Amino acid sequence: MTYTDLIGYTASLLIMVAFLPQAYQVWKTKSVEDVSLMTYTILMFGSVSWTTYGLLKSDFPIIITNVTLFVVQGSIMVCKLKYGKKIIT
Amino acid sequence: MTYTDLIGYTASLLIMVAFLPQAYQVWKTKSVEDVSLMTYTILMFGSVSWTTYGLLKSDFPIIITNVTLFVVQGSIMVCKLKYGKKIIT
Repeated sequence: MTYTDLIGYTASLLIMVAFLPQAYQVWKTKSVEDVSLMTYTILMFGSVSWTTYGLLKSDFPIIITNVTLFVVQGSIMVCKLKYGKKIIT
Repeated sequence: MTYTDLIGYTASLLIMVAFLPQAYQVWKTKSVEDVSLMTYTILMFGSVSWTTYGLLKSDFPIIITNVTLFVVQGSIMVCKLKYGKKIIT
């Protein structure tokens, strides 16, 4: 593994773990008012596009990173849709 | 440009624009309670690592995507640090 590869894997790992604190916070507090639904909707399309790109290029790090992101960001979006209703009702 | 390239560029574009609604929302509402500081701190390290990786591989799409992300996610983090103080004081 080269020095460049190591930086690439570190970068992937950081992005994968980055959304865990946000997911934990919205799940724990059930407060999602300040979280942008549009941002997480676009991120869903983003991770699906990246996963497709990774599959077409047979690039495993891209696939695993974006499948993980889809799950974690998706859980934040589910919380937003579920707990965000409080504002309307 | 191949079909795969097109998906890659679409994926990059989606990720670049995704955080704009979140940045606009926190800037407009000045309400950041539900935004995770830890998430945006890790994302900052992530975009710096990705930019370094892009520079080492001379990969322009990776560089431009992550410099953009650094600026937009950084502005969300600045709002969090600035307006988040309201909770303490």
